[in-house]
Amino acid sequence: MQVLNGVIKSIEELNEDSVNNAQERMENLIKPPGSLGVLEDLAIKMAGIMGDSRPVIGEKSVIVMAGDHGVVQEGVSIASQEVTRQMLSTFLNGIGGVGVLARQAGARVVVVDVGVAGGPVNVTGVISRKVKPGTQNIARGPAMTREEAVQAIEAGIEVVRTEINRGAGVIATGDMGIGNTTPSSAILAVLGNYTALEVTGRGTLVNDDVMSLKCNTIASALEINKPDCTDGLDVLSKVGGFEIAGLTGVILGAAANNVPVIIDGFISTAAAMIAASLEKKCINYMIASHLSSEDGHKLMLEYLGLKPMLYMNMRLGEGTGAVLAMNLVDAGCRILNEMATFSEAEVMDLEDDKILK
Amino acid sequence: MQVLNGVIKSIEELNEDSVNNAQERMENLIKPPGSLGVLEDLAIKMAGIMGDSRPVIGEKSVIVMAGDHGVVQEGVSIASQEVTRQMLSTFLNGIGGVGVLARQAGARVVVVDVGVAGGPVNVTGVISRKVKPGTQNIARGPAMTREEAVQAIEAGIEVVRTEINRGAGVIATGDMGIGNTTPSSAILAVLGNYTALEVTGRGTLVNDDVMSLKCNTIASALEINKPDCTDGLDVLSKVGGFEIAGLTGVILGAAANNVPVIIDGFISTAAAMIAASLEKKCINYMIASHLSSEDGHKLMLEYLGLKPMLYMNMRLGEGTGAVLAMNLVDAGCRILNEMATFSEAEVMDLEDDKILK
Repeated sequence: MQVLNGVIKSIEELNEDSVNNAQERMENLIKPPGSLGVLEDLAIKMAGIMGDSRPVIGEKSVIVMAGDHGVVQEGVSIASQEVTRQMLSTFLNGIGGVGVLARQAGARVVVVDVGVAGGPVNVTGVISRKVKPGTQNIARGPAMTREEAVQAIEAGIEVVRTEINRGAGVIATGDMGIGNTTPSSAILAVLGNYTALEVTGRGTLVNDDVMSLKCNTIASALEINKPDCTDGLDVLSKVGGFEIAGLTGVILGAAANNVPVIIDGFISTAAAMIAASLEKKCINYMIASHLSSEDGHKLMLEYLGLKPMLYMNMRLGEGTGAVLAMNLVDAGCRILNEMATFSEAEVMDLEDDKILK
Repeated sequence: MQVLNGVIKSIEELNEDSVNNAQERMENLIKPPGSLGVLEDLAIKMAGIMGDSRPVIGEKSVIVMAGDHGVVQEGVSIASQEVTRQMLSTFLNGIGGVGVLARQAGARVVVVDVGVAGGPVNVTGVISRKVKPGTQNIARGPAMTREEAVQAIEAGIEVVRTEINRGAGVIATGDMGIGNTTPSSAILAVLGNYTALEVTGRGTLVNDDVMSLKCNTIASALEINKPDCTDGLDVLSKVGGFEIAGLTGVILGAAANNVPVIIDGFISTAAAMIAASLEKKCINYMIASHLSSEDGHKLMLEYLGLKPMLYMNMRLGEGTGAVLAMNLVDAGCRILNEMATFSEAEVMDLEDDKILK
């Protein structure tokens, strides 16, 4: 708890001077003010996060937190629980979704077992921070104890800190966990004050019968656990998951270290909601990437006041959407750094093309 | 006209075998079917366009067509006409918006003067295909003759052909032309059957007074010219522009050469509408990039049945949005090529991580 409290305390407001200086330069670039829209906002946000009015995107890491969910006993998922474990190596060896897209983006993939069912994951490169081999069934009681939630969050804090110390300047969040749209929906319901019906989406391959079962399961989880919406740790431990807790730590840890964190889809944004409920200032360090095709994602982003950039109808998780957005964050920084201002351009004789020579 | 007719005749349907083979592989990749959404659609479309079930994105070019507009005499634009000419060198020397983003994307920038006001543009690298130094004022009569429209289209066909011969495997469209939201709005009104009010947007820095003037100007252009909505060349020559004609040629030429063309914002999509009205099959070769903040852009994309991927609130033109989307097209192809299928993954002992060794 000490680590978590320390991190929460050290999250600052964005650097106002850097924001103002970046804004001023942006307004003087050789284009109509505002015409690059979100690219401009991104660059100015990056300036504030990094405390540098000419921010340059650093090394990139995507941190994929993995965990299993006792609630799959209720039949809320079509896929079998073993898939959580099986997919982890594909992220690292580059044949899985996030493996491919991270290679394209030039991002390091970090995979962490915070709560995968069964024994240790025997894959080189998977970091073991297993709190427990999966949560308890949230339809019957709490997912985990409050202490376990803190332990998983602090694992995320430690992993992101290590990445930042290794040189990461931008972090993307990713998740792997069969059944994890169910706890994520429950988190949305509690913190966003929605009914189970309003937050239940199709997840992966869920048909109408399973949808109805899933909705009832979420309703039971809320009814039995009665999570306290004013206490993020209570919500997380009662209806969350270990990978969601790990991602909460990643987000808080990035913010505490003045590093931007790109939020992936439904599961990652559930973690972002928990992080925001623990310390609202961390929202300033978040960059929304894509709008997932999972129904409730839009509501989550609205809760956080974030706007997605990519409308790709994706719902794979793993950090795929967040990694895809790294190029956009880079683009924003490049606009601020590499475009000329009117006064810079004026000293060049443009038509005679002296700049090229 | 012979070149244009030849190009129109040579545009084929997408390669069905390649589409089917790509689709089959996509469904067998180690992820829930459909979970990568638009990335999957992109890859399959690329397969059909290129006639290759494992498409690889080739060299990238953005072709920026520039032209001026007689209609600025009506006061529809805040910026002065000289800006069209002044901006061209910034695209090539990399200090302008598209220059910066093309460098990030690894795309060659090709700038073509199809109708810039005044004499030749004295900038190394600007290709001169000037049909005339700007259009006539569409509020008073036709923008150009039908012959001039064909000449500008054929300039675009020739430029894109040269780029493809130099190795370009994907083309992005870009525009530069002070005042060109006005003719683009007029094209949307005619082909989409909208009123002037429904298609008039803010363009660049336009205030309420100018908006009203702009709307009336578009209404006059439609009233005086009476463009025939069943004849794309008639619409283009009466209420279009030289850069719009050039881009129409780029789009048709790319399609005729089985090369994908990424469509930028409002002006480029107006050209795409003209291209589609000349040969509907060319829509299959188009990839929509972003949704511009210019109001009518949504209506244009609906007309073409295309969905944008990036919601960045951008409205700079120059090809900035199209270039930003190149990374997404590449990502789709990589998913198809680099992700493993379930049967490919099965032969690997994933947990023992043999792939890494």
